[in-house]
Amino acid sequence: MTEMKVPDLMTKALALLRADADKIYKLIDVQMENLNMPQCPLYEEVLDTQMFGLSREIDFAVRLGLIEEETGREILGELERKLADLHDAYSIKK
Amino acid sequence: MTEMKVPDLMTKALALLRADADKIYKLIDVQMENLNMPQCPLYEEVLDTQMFGLSREIDFAVRLGLIEEETGREILGELERKLADLHDAYSIKK
Repeated sequence: MTEMKVPDLMTKALALLRADADKIYKLIDVQMENLNMPQCPLYEEVLDTQMFGLSREIDFAVRLGLIEEETGREILGELERKLADLHDAYSIKK
Repeated sequence: MTEMKVPDLMTKALALLRADADKIYKLIDVQMENLNMPQCPLYEEVLDTQMFGLSREIDFAVRLGLIEEETGREILGELERKLADLHDAYSIKK
């Protein structure tokens, strides 16, 4: 791994974080599809825990200087927007 | 930050993870001191969430190739051991 260069690590860090954000989105989508209740406390708990995990990863990448703070905020913000849309879509369906 | 070299990043990643593990230990210690109840569900939830956050950071560092998987397991394992000791110490006190 030491043959990796710092710019490669920056690219990889960003790709991993985006992939992780996407994984959370898919997890919540599957949960909504199956639990069929966006107000379920279990759903809120899973979501909060997952978002916390991602925010810890992002914060870690920022502290290592692998991504900009602003980029980290964008990743979290975009996921939050997408999840809010998903939540609305399922709420209307009920 | 681009003037940082990969070995520096590896050292920094390890230091950050150890510091984060230590922060969790201190947080739980303060909680036990103040809540005075290791069986409190709130305590369990805070602990689980914090451990999940740290495990996400460690997993991220492993995927970036900044730390070995084994090192990551050691950091989590050591924190778990220290927290179990803390839990026992406070349980005996009651």
